[in-house]
Amino acid sequence: MPPFLSISQRLRNTPFTHRVKASGVKAYTVYNHMLLPTVFESVEADYHHLKSKVQVWDVSCQRQVEVKGPDATKLIQMLTPRNLSKMADDQCYYIPVVDETGGMLNDPVAVKHSADRWWISIADSDLLYWVKGLARGRNMDVDVFEPDVSPLAIQGPHSNQLMERVFGEEISSLRFFRHRKVDFNGHSFTVARSGFSTQGGFEIYVEGTENGEPIWDALFAAGQDLDVRAGCPNLIERIEGGLLSYGNDMTREHTPYEAGMGKFCKGAAVKDCIGSEALQRERENGPKRQICHIDIMGKAVPSCEAAWPVTFNGEPAGQVTSAAWSPDFDTNVAIGMIDRAHWDAGTEISVHTPDGRRDAVIKALPFNR
Amino acid sequence: MPPFLSISQRLRNTPFTHRVKASGVKAYTVYNHMLLPTVFESVEADYHHLKSKVQVWDVSCQRQVEVKGPDATKLIQMLTPRNLSKMADDQCYYIPVVDETGGMLNDPVAVKHSADRWWISIADSDLLYWVKGLARGRNMDVDVFEPDVSPLAIQGPHSNQLMERVFGEEISSLRFFRHRKVDFNGHSFTVARSGFSTQGGFEIYVEGTENGEPIWDALFAAGQDLDVRAGCPNLIERIEGGLLSYGNDMTREHTPYEAGMGKFCKGAAVKDCIGSEALQRERENGPKRQICHIDIMGKAVPSCEAAWPVTFNGEPAGQVTSAAWSPDFDTNVAIGMIDRAHWDAGTEISVHTPDGRRDAVIKALPFNR
Repeated sequence: MPPFLSISQRLRNTPFTHRVKASGVKAYTVYNHMLLPTVFESVEADYHHLKSKVQVWDVSCQRQVEVKGPDATKLIQMLTPRNLSKMADDQCYYIPVVDETGGMLNDPVAVKHSADRWWISIADSDLLYWVKGLARGRNMDVDVFEPDVSPLAIQGPHSNQLMERVFGEEISSLRFFRHRKVDFNGHSFTVARSGFSTQGGFEIYVEGTENGEPIWDALFAAGQDLDVRAGCPNLIERIEGGLLSYGNDMTREHTPYEAGMGKFCKGAAVKDCIGSEALQRERENGPKRQICHIDIMGKAVPSCEAAWPVTFNGEPAGQVTSAAWSPDFDTNVAIGMIDRAHWDAGTEISVHTPDGRRDAVIKALPFNR
Repeated sequence: MPPFLSISQRLRNTPFTHRVKASGVKAYTVYNHMLLPTVFESVEADYHHLKSKVQVWDVSCQRQVEVKGPDATKLIQMLTPRNLSKMADDQCYYIPVVDETGGMLNDPVAVKHSADRWWISIADSDLLYWVKGLARGRNMDVDVFEPDVSPLAIQGPHSNQLMERVFGEEISSLRFFRHRKVDFNGHSFTVARSGFSTQGGFEIYVEGTENGEPIWDALFAAGQDLDVRAGCPNLIERIEGGLLSYGNDMTREHTPYEAGMGKFCKGAAVKDCIGSEALQRERENGPKRQICHIDIMGKAVPSCEAAWPVTFNGEPAGQVTSAAWSPDFDTNVAIGMIDRAHWDAGTEISVHTPDGRRDAVIKALPFNR
């Protein structure tokens, strides 16, 4: 039996917590000092439902860092090696954020509203502190703060249908990683086509805690015949899709190159980024290790609660950081950080789980591609 | 029944996690992306044991931010209004850390090793990012990083006895919030007289993950006849003692004055602090609300999982953020943030718990004083 979670004010409730509880949440994790559901019926049942129906996810823990003012774009470009110069005002960019050593501090989605107003939709670290620290240190002309904005994700193959019913048919024309405003009950919310699954879907940036329950209720009322359910990022599905989890698969100890994000580190913008010199060296030398998708043989592996060592012919070769039994692929899907000498697709490695050694193979692509 | 916690690599293990599990931990919270035990036998049984015996606490989640280099002391003084100019190299100071608005970013303990080397032993926020951001923004001559240091707390009335048996009699002469080096198995560790209880005790800053289990085992071997047990910060005991919990009782929304830390904001050093102007205004006007110790009447209150509204004659008067039934005081002990008009000792207020309204009284001091 897993341990219990002691809930306190410090593990913040969300605008949707009452609805999540009423939907029968069984387990949480803690993400950005906030409750993030992990299980409703079971991880496997939730998985099958996500891949065939539509779910509503409380991902309020994807907190926003709002950067507002004349220096906003300049500051955002200091954070990341990704070139933002061609980004439109309705675009979202996945941006690795690095420090002066090139180590990743977060892997958020930047949501550009205008040149002087951005949201950074963050993974699990207090990126607000880094952005505020830089802004104060350089006396930049920006405000940096956490607004009352809580993303609600609509994910799954029927997400277009559900969204059309609540926000009108035109929402389906929204392109991937673009955002626009929608009206609801006299309020205007930013909606993006995005989300932490590969089943398709949207994220509604709900502004104002008081608007959380009405929008949740409207989605459930509209989607009853679609079998809409409360869900959450699903461990199995996200590994199948190759989606990385900051803190699990990569940390401050890793560069974007090691995280397989070299394509975001090209071009002139690198020079404006705090980590430009370190990343330049990494680009020339190549990373020493890199994120790989890994197929672990045999029966279902246990829960991966801490990194599992990987060896090649008995020598250390890296670690596995996420793993789960996949019913659809009939194998254990996994993500790990593998040393350069052993990262080629097809390499046969050993993964040392708490239940013993397993044979495993490096894959060229995520499982679902 | 409380919900389960889904454990993953992102919720970091500590050097002591195996021993904590073997000791029968039942529940955790998550603190600085790390597992922090909350219950062994039960919160009440753990409480009685803590107040009569001696416990060993895995408080690795009090991560260290190491600041090293010629500008170290200058940078630390930028973080806090507390005057550090008279601090000796063997002292620990409790320092509110504020941003430019005077809002609290953390309430760590600063451990001074020398003018150019400090540890900041942090509460639950990524203070590393703020300190790094300021250092980079100002191009200061310091390294800022998280070292492999995991505090282990020895708390309870028999803590002197246990520490003497493992580290020699002289350890008992260590004064409150002073630190010194002790030898263990050929290693040298910093030990401070400190800890998040008011039962007396020490914190051992264990350097090197590999040293965690040997030191844990030595303490348990030496303390068998003292009935030493694995423990953790205890909700009831810390409220009785008036110890504040960052994220529960105060947040970025609150100033040090509101958190009752006005005594740390005096003197010339305020000028060097990032938040000096904002704090100067707060000092002149006085805070609008302040931390209070609160006695809640009636039977045991439910678990305080989110702030409870406080009213005075039906008007909003603040909130309660921590509360628990105290067997020793035979009442519900609580901490809350109360508006200026109602914070005088003896004021009768209403606390609105999920189980209904309760009569309550503001106290002049924490329960154990």
